[in-house]
Amino acid sequence: MKKKVTLKQIAKELDVSISTVSKSLRNSLEIGEETRLKVQAFAKFYNYKPNNIALSLKNRKTKTIGIIIPEIVHYFFSTVINGIEQIANEKGYSVIICLSNDSFDKEVLNMEMLANGSIDGFIMSLSKETQYKADFHHITEVINQGMPVVMFDRITNEVLCDKVIIDDKTAAYEAVQSLIDKGRKKIALVTTVDYVSVGKLRTDGYIKALLDNGIPFNENLIIKIEDVDTCEITIGKLMEDKAIDAVFAVNELFAVTIIKTAHKIGLKVPDDLAVIAFTDGIISKYSTPTITTVSQSGSKMGKKAAKMLIDRLESEEEDGEENYKTEVIETHLIERESTN
Amino acid sequence: MKKKVTLKQIAKELDVSISTVSKSLRNSLEIGEETRLKVQAFAKFYNYKPNNIALSLKNRKTKTIGIIIPEIVHYFFSTVINGIEQIANEKGYSVIICLSNDSFDKEVLNMEMLANGSIDGFIMSLSKETQYKADFHHITEVINQGMPVVMFDRITNEVLCDKVIIDDKTAAYEAVQSLIDKGRKKIALVTTVDYVSVGKLRTDGYIKALLDNGIPFNENLIIKIEDVDTCEITIGKLMEDKAIDAVFAVNELFAVTIIKTAHKIGLKVPDDLAVIAFTDGIISKYSTPTITTVSQSGSKMGKKAAKMLIDRLESEEEDGEENYKTEVIETHLIERESTN
Repeated sequence: MKKKVTLKQIAKELDVSISTVSKSLRNSLEIGEETRLKVQAFAKFYNYKPNNIALSLKNRKTKTIGIIIPEIVHYFFSTVINGIEQIANEKGYSVIICLSNDSFDKEVLNMEMLANGSIDGFIMSLSKETQYKADFHHITEVINQGMPVVMFDRITNEVLCDKVIIDDKTAAYEAVQSLIDKGRKKIALVTTVDYVSVGKLRTDGYIKALLDNGIPFNENLIIKIEDVDTCEITIGKLMEDKAIDAVFAVNELFAVTIIKTAHKIGLKVPDDLAVIAFTDGIISKYSTPTITTVSQSGSKMGKKAAKMLIDRLESEEEDGEENYKTEVIETHLIERESTN
Repeated sequence: MKKKVTLKQIAKELDVSISTVSKSLRNSLEIGEETRLKVQAFAKFYNYKPNNIALSLKNRKTKTIGIIIPEIVHYFFSTVINGIEQIANEKGYSVIICLSNDSFDKEVLNMEMLANGSIDGFIMSLSKETQYKADFHHITEVINQGMPVVMFDRITNEVLCDKVIIDDKTAAYEAVQSLIDKGRKKIALVTTVDYVSVGKLRTDGYIKALLDNGIPFNENLIIKIEDVDTCEITIGKLMEDKAIDAVFAVNELFAVTIIKTAHKIGLKVPDDLAVIAFTDGIISKYSTPTITTVSQSGSKMGKKAAKMLIDRLESEEEDGEENYKTEVIETHLIERESTN
């Protein structure tokens, strides 16, 4: 029996990207004719069988939900999974999890693997690379074949499907407003690079809160970083210069690093520096001082996403674009020692 | 087309446990004849197809590894998964994760689902309930059908397969010895209930270290708890009575709770109370004071488990009991502020 060739093997053999193979097999005009024909010929020769979701969907229900998330060492995603598991268990569904490790190729391969008869529908949060590339063909493809997808947190407006988000802009606005209400005026935003959509929205909320309160917006107080080491150096400098009296950090690792840096320099938290973090992670609860956070309600988000997916799977109606919903989960500020 | 009936549905319909159905279908004499025949008749009537792993294994390789872990909101398991992913990626394997949520039934169902053609082999850590019940028939079954299993951390000696563990007893011994070397004599062990095998081994190491150093073993200093609230009350009492000058906690949540309790009572860490935690979680790095830990090397464990599984999948030899290995991953003490 001839071994089944995979998308990945075709890509490797022809030295093209997985996305190119996938698009060529769908005869996408984005790919030049020569490459397209070469891929198609190769696939045919090796008897490559693309997903035939429509067929497998007709024949059976797996009662299984596929989750694709960017990473696992991240308390937020763990709480979302717990929420999904809870509803899935109640409704008699099993759950399978795959990680994209923030890689576009892995996201494509994982979707291909799971869509091939293992699951009934997807709950997913986009990888950073997918957001950066803005290439969503692998997602529209499964949707077009009749397999429902619910996106959460890291979503895109370019794909029509059910979505669960928090209102990142309003959440950031309220956090910054709470700092302003406590008399802080020199508020820094510590965020990641821009191509993750949520980072952009949080920045918008931060700026709006400042401007609504008549505080001039100072571009130098937006600190964009990717790792904790950079965080310490950049923020340390601002602290020493007394350029800031509060920090709004987009995750708790940044927040706890900022607090440690402040202590080193001899500043007191919250007296000299108030700190709020986005996320309801576990570090914030146990650090000294405990950290005020904007709760992302991961578990609620997971429950809602699972309900939306299962409702769609079990509904008798034809799916249609007009029915797609975007649910907004409420956030709330959990006040702790770092701001009081 | 008749809908495929699942193990779970049969169990529900006949009002017996999943384990009973599974064993009856294998004609296990553990199950009374009446029940056995009833289950078999029901399964036959509904055309239940049990796994036929041997057949699917012959026909194709999925190049996919299935992971089954007890829970996801646990930094240790996340690091193990990262280790597995790293090796799997290098070797061209995909990874699928399922959670047992520490439930025996979910573990059985997840294994049944994945073994049915989705994966080539398992890497797993037992659920608490499975350890408590000591029922491993679902695992021996897949092994007997030719699908390799690698167990890590929470293992059992009752199943013959490849295993990756840390030497919990020696690790605990060394941690307690380091406290004794620092002049501590009244050392409490804060642990979970006994049926998780690792808890037992850590307790053995703790006791041995005391006795080897001529410190009498005091049963009242072994605190068995399941949640953080109990931890605070019990340990708080011992602290107030000055009954302890050091704590060895089996996880970092206990450790950080103990430190917070000590601060409330007015004790200084480490001066009045030294604290060591098992695990290399993220809280220990960021708490104040930072916490000395016994590193569990989750990532190393994951890498080793993945290598063992892939080697077995790709080896040409016949599998045989005589080849099964148990790899012991070295731990090491990460000294931080809570003991120095």
